[in-house]
Amino acid sequence: MTAEIVEIEALSINGTGDEEDVVTPWNVTSKNDTGIDYDKLIKKFGSSKIDDELINRFEKITQKRPHHFLRRGIFFSHRDMHTILNLYEQGKPFYLYTGRGPSSDSMHIGHLIPFMFCKWLQDVFDVPLVIQLTDDEKAIWKNIDIESAIKLAHNNAKDIIACGFNLSKTFIFSNLEHIGNNPAFYQNMIRVQRCVTYNQVKGIFGFGDSDPIGKIAFPPTQAAPAISGTFPFIFQDKKVACLIPCAIDQDPYFRMTRDVTPKIGYPKPALLHSTFFPALQGSKTKMSASDNLTAVFLTDTPKQIKNKINKYAFSGGQATVEEHRRLGGNCEVDVSYQWLRFFLEDDEKLKKIREGYTSGQILSGEIKKELIEVLQPLVAKHQEARSKITDDILKEFMKPRDLGFVYKS
Amino acid sequence: MTAEIVEIEALSINGTGDEEDVVTPWNVTSKNDTGIDYDKLIKKFGSSKIDDELINRFEKITQKRPHHFLRRGIFFSHRDMHTILNLYEQGKPFYLYTGRGPSSDSMHIGHLIPFMFCKWLQDVFDVPLVIQLTDDEKAIWKNIDIESAIKLAHNNAKDIIACGFNLSKTFIFSNLEHIGNNPAFYQNMIRVQRCVTYNQVKGIFGFGDSDPIGKIAFPPTQAAPAISGTFPFIFQDKKVACLIPCAIDQDPYFRMTRDVTPKIGYPKPALLHSTFFPALQGSKTKMSASDNLTAVFLTDTPKQIKNKINKYAFSGGQATVEEHRRLGGNCEVDVSYQWLRFFLEDDEKLKKIREGYTSGQILSGEIKKELIEVLQPLVAKHQEARSKITDDILKEFMKPRDLGFVYKS
Repeated sequence: MTAEIVEIEALSINGTGDEEDVVTPWNVTSKNDTGIDYDKLIKKFGSSKIDDELINRFEKITQKRPHHFLRRGIFFSHRDMHTILNLYEQGKPFYLYTGRGPSSDSMHIGHLIPFMFCKWLQDVFDVPLVIQLTDDEKAIWKNIDIESAIKLAHNNAKDIIACGFNLSKTFIFSNLEHIGNNPAFYQNMIRVQRCVTYNQVKGIFGFGDSDPIGKIAFPPTQAAPAISGTFPFIFQDKKVACLIPCAIDQDPYFRMTRDVTPKIGYPKPALLHSTFFPALQGSKTKMSASDNLTAVFLTDTPKQIKNKINKYAFSGGQATVEEHRRLGGNCEVDVSYQWLRFFLEDDEKLKKIREGYTSGQILSGEIKKELIEVLQPLVAKHQEARSKITDDILKEFMKPRDLGFVYKS
Repeated sequence: MTAEIVEIEALSINGTGDEEDVVTPWNVTSKNDTGIDYDKLIKKFGSSKIDDELINRFEKITQKRPHHFLRRGIFFSHRDMHTILNLYEQGKPFYLYTGRGPSSDSMHIGHLIPFMFCKWLQDVFDVPLVIQLTDDEKAIWKNIDIESAIKLAHNNAKDIIACGFNLSKTFIFSNLEHIGNNPAFYQNMIRVQRCVTYNQVKGIFGFGDSDPIGKIAFPPTQAAPAISGTFPFIFQDKKVACLIPCAIDQDPYFRMTRDVTPKIGYPKPALLHSTFFPALQGSKTKMSASDNLTAVFLTDTPKQIKNKINKYAFSGGQATVEEHRRLGGNCEVDVSYQWLRFFLEDDEKLKKIREGYTSGQILSGEIKKELIEVLQPLVAKHQEARSKITDDILKEFMKPRDLGFVYKS
């Protein structure tokens, strides 16, 4: 898992619209004004669109209103989600798996997306969730020392726990700590490693001959948690289906995983893919944990949030108030509107903002104000929840343990 | 570590003497009649010959007569052995590390060589010894299932313990079990993995792009035990020097290891290299655990030993008794003589056999009888010792534990 959900390089100001988007776990680039073409990506990756039929079926089966991430196409692509719904319909179990590559002390609001969604899925389906912190990946790619990587993992884990996960259903682990504490994990790494050739990972991930072998060896480490046998303390010896919500840049790992798991007697994991969260400066700016002006961090004060958005949020508005009233704003590129799609839950209100901004009734300063009023309490609430996550609570979540999983065949 | 100490392919009956020998952990080939040219190998690998000066220093410092494996050039090459002797002289600590790739249920007598030598070194220096069973390597290379690989490791471990190791100074571990039981191990694997590129392992081990990534990821797993930090339960946080006795085909792993350890703050491990143990049919036959006529196994009966040697041991004798009396036998290619060099401890007796056989006084049947009389009691004694190694004793040796190591700085 990588730290940056969005890594869009500003290579050209005016893309031709015909350039190929690049989406890998370490590089997401688009030369188009509106960012990644997600429909094209679905075709390229061979996944399926989350369409109305799936969303309706979701609602029918779960008796819950689909999350706004689903309704708004933020989670837009899937693999085998119908299989997961079939299992749920039949009363058969599955589990959730997601992860994060801890690369900086502070997470930004975009990092919350997969966790907010997992929390909701966990509540709706009442299933176990495993969260992998790939501190080993970070130690290899960023060349930070092992001890620091583990510290980052712990820090990030506290932010994740603050999203409200159910302790009795959630296991969070750092690779650098847990793999040496769970023989089944290393054994499944070996089972996967021997099924995948260098040519394959070269093709999937673009590794080169001068890359350290740590990089080449890593993909099976991210694959292993999609095999329920990796967690015998949770699933005993049951082969339980797995659903992975993640940003679509992680799909290469799980394409590889889906190729391997049937060969070792396990079901292919299902996937739910999200779009990327845009940087404050717009879809073409690379969001970076090291440049704290490109994102709103979970540690930002209300004042910092206000200033950042007012000063840096890329505007889809017109150059003058008069022009704006006459021509209206462009929601497709306006970062305030894009971020509101992620964080403003009220559909009616979002619709009104969209209409108002598009028609020119709502000015850029006003849409920014709407966003500020959503984010300030959201971040404050997160900070309050985060402040209650003690080292002891962290330890409880990170302890390998029986989650009371019962297999009903 | 590989199972076969000797893997010499019978590619040509009459080598030219100018062909390059091939020595890798998976393939040892010589096209020369007398097998591998070890002096050339020392030059090629850049190691040092174990010369009289080193042997004399060894004797002077330890006050022990050097083992016949040293006196007879069976351990013939080294790296930094003088550094180890310096440490011993100064009362500073080091530890021994060796290993084995468990590929068959029964080990043959050639497999005992590194362990007999380690046992002697352990007694002479009174130092801790760690023994790695690379069941993960076997699972990858031979595609056997994980559970079977662990069983082979346990079986082989009992044969190793039967060599007489001191429980209070010896830790034996299977990778598939232990790596998931020791966070420091995985962390050091990552530390090594990120210092070595694919190009490097390709050059050192000859891996190809269609190899599974398990193979590419493996060398750091064999490197990690040469770092004392991998065993905090033995060495606490001390950086302790390491001495690795092994067959010379394992040197590529440790050339890589010696390149990496200084980069992560540890000393380069020192090495003692042995020659290969020849197959019953001679240096050019591939010794194979799957062909039980090429070796004497630790499970063979006295009768089987007698029959195998009489029937299959490659003879350096002449075609007829008359010719043999006149021309004498050739000890360089006679397997019975070669094996006696390994297992007959009595120097005087070995010298007499050599002189007698070379002069034609001793016939081929007679030198075979000498070997049979050495091997039958050796194997019987091993079997008796092996029969006493219970599962409980095995567990004790394989338990990560404090070996009472004290660091005197």
